Amino acid sequence: MASEHSVPPTISEVAAAAGVGRSTAARTLGGYGYVSPELRERVLAAAERLGYRANALARSMSTGVTQTLGVIVADIANPFFGGVVRGISDASRARGVETLVLSTHEDLAEEIAATDVLIDKRVDGIVVASAALDVGSAAHIQQARDRGIPVVLVDRAVTGLLLDTVVIDNRAAARDAVAKLVAAGHRRIGFVWGPPLEDRPQRRRELTDVAARNLWTDAQRLQGYLDALDDAGILFDADLVMVGRKTEENAEVEVTRMLGLEHPPTALFCTENDAVTGSLRALRAAGLRVADDISLIGFDDSSWAAVMEPPLTMIEQPTLALGTRAAEVLFAAIDGESPAPQVHTLRTRFVERASVAAPRER
Amino acid sequence: MASEHSVPPTISEVAAAAGVGRSTAARTLGGYGYVSPELRERVLAAAERLGYRANALARSMSTGVTQTLGVIVADIANPFFGGVVRGISDASRARGVETLVLSTHEDLAEEIAATDVLIDKRVDGIVVASAALDVGSAAHIQQARDRGIPVVLVDRAVTGLLLDTVVIDNRAAARDAVAKLVAAGHRRIGFVWGPPLEDRPQRRRELTDVAARNLWTDAQRLQGYLDALDDAGILFDADLVMVGRKTEENAEVEVTRMLGLEHPPTALFCTENDAVTGSLRALRAAGLRVADDISLIGFDDSSWAAVMEPPLTMIEQPTLALGTRAAEVLFAAIDGESPAPQVHTLRTRFVERASVAAPRER
Repeated sequence: MASEHSVPPTISEVAAAAGVGRSTAARTLGGYGYVSPELRERVLAAAERLGYRANALARSMSTGVTQTLGVIVADIANPFFGGVVRGISDASRARGVETLVLSTHEDLAEEIAATDVLIDKRVDGIVVASAALDVGSAAHIQQARDRGIPVVLVDRAVTGLLLDTVVIDNRAAARDAVAKLVAAGHRRIGFVWGPPLEDRPQRRRELTDVAARNLWTDAQRLQGYLDALDDAGILFDADLVMVGRKTEENAEVEVTRMLGLEHPPTALFCTENDAVTGSLRALRAAGLRVADDISLIGFDDSSWAAVMEPPLTMIEQPTLALGTRAAEVLFAAIDGESPAPQVHTLRTRFVERASVAAPRER
Repeated sequence: MASEHSVPPTISEVAAAAGVGRSTAARTLGGYGYVSPELRERVLAAAERLGYRANALARSMSTGVTQTLGVIVADIANPFFGGVVRGISDASRARGVETLVLSTHEDLAEEIAATDVLIDKRVDGIVVASAALDVGSAAHIQQARDRGIPVVLVDRAVTGLLLDTVVIDNRAAARDAVAKLVAAGHRRIGFVWGPPLEDRPQRRRELTDVAARNLWTDAQRLQGYLDALDDAGILFDADLVMVGRKTEENAEVEVTRMLGLEHPPTALFCTENDAVTGSLRALRAAGLRVADDISLIGFDDSSWAAVMEPPLTMIEQPTLALGTRAAEVLFAAIDGESPAPQVHTLRTRFVERASVAAPRER
């Protein structure tokens, strides 16, 4: 433990202290090649005496294993990804593996750069919530795999990319939530938020085409909303779908617009946390109370949603489980145990509270 | 751009294609040593034709620069650290530097392991929100510095460790917030949360001693609370300080206990987001309304706090600025421009909304 050096010693210094050659010390400390038990013991004793610390980088150059995973997420400041990363690092730690995280701001060029860094840092595997919309923009993922680094997708599928993919049942969760609003008597249900379009599409097909070319989770949730309308025989109304930038501010603007329609929505389905808080800002400004005046269901549950007045009915994503499952699938691939790639779909939980009521008589 | 290889070519393959020796190709592509302009051009043309990608790991072995920063935070799932990391990566990206993040679950052993990984991955510098309570448990930080890797502390100072440290004015922010409660007429002010003690300390000195041995930010905020009481001539009452585990659940339990006191608090000062939501759970269960029945001020502002009924008066931390400042200070050190280490204190913002009112007549 005690070190005579302020800077840890080199392998050569350990070799000199042990009275062996440098290559013997290197083989012992690097864990490769043959060293007699007697010499090995002398090297290890000298290493301990001098406070030698193996340079894992040099070690990984010879063994090819660094005991690190790489994780690439769209936005580390989003609590959803915080939970996923936590799940991955919990599972990794159980194997003595460290997790290196990079955040890309939902930018494909940054994702490609992040992948390069992880390849260069020789991680053993990569989990990515990719901004790639289809296999045509996923060459960086293919490049990692070509170099023998297993990759698992999390949160989003990438169309045409046949990789292990760990996601939630976005479409079914949205369909079920909107069905609850329908069951409470609602037929005018606002969708917050939709695809980032400048102009409002008037045709349903146009909307779904655009959604399909954008973020996979968004498209799935929109499709679930449309499924529920179809199930109930409710005609799609483009005026009830938010368009434009996906921000809290724009959600407020768009919900305010919907509230000014001749036939305003009596309920809102919000697909993100910022869509929920933006909607609540608009309702407050309009003097409307949740449940009494307008019903609301949101994606993703949080401590805050539970202490709102009234407490909000929310869809809870299994964020930690998404992370741990992704890590488990990745470790199976690293260990060479993986079967054909598949989509692993985890269940969301519908947390019923008090933000849904019958539509108010007008 | 076009590659004939599904796996990128090696330096040897580039050398063969260029009709030069391997060492010439390696010198050209690695950016070290002398290569004649003519040969250099042939190598670069061949590299481009074959889709050669420099292995930054090998390059860093020779140049010692990896163009990566390491960041170690207590809990990546905490939106506060999410914001700090975002600030660091924004500032790094402006320099073309990638950010690798590790999360330690507030565990010193994990922080030491994370530091090892970053040293081994040869990052150019490290930003750490350390769980080390004093310099005696910060040998790992010293080790990184001994290896020539600059380190900047963020969010928390480490007692006795003379390093550039980027923090907020925790003590002053707490003092100001509690002074606002005093100015509104409150004299019974609950503190949520305090140090993680099993038994409730009755003496003020005992409390501050324990706090000083625990997390720096917590101790600073407690000290600010005590400052404000002193300023107003209010005697400290140990019953009004939360003890035990720092969780939302325990905050609910402790506030419920305070509400049952013969002289319950008329206001609460909450030092974390989970302390706010735990307190709100207790108030709801007791049928108390914020502002009307009991005032509340919390740390850290969020979108949710603004849409509560009533909207909550909160202290806003400059999370992004903490990150960008830490990165700037680190880059100055990497560039060899840093003066003597100092503490960089950023200002919080007091966001006045509607959760503070005069105490209710009893």
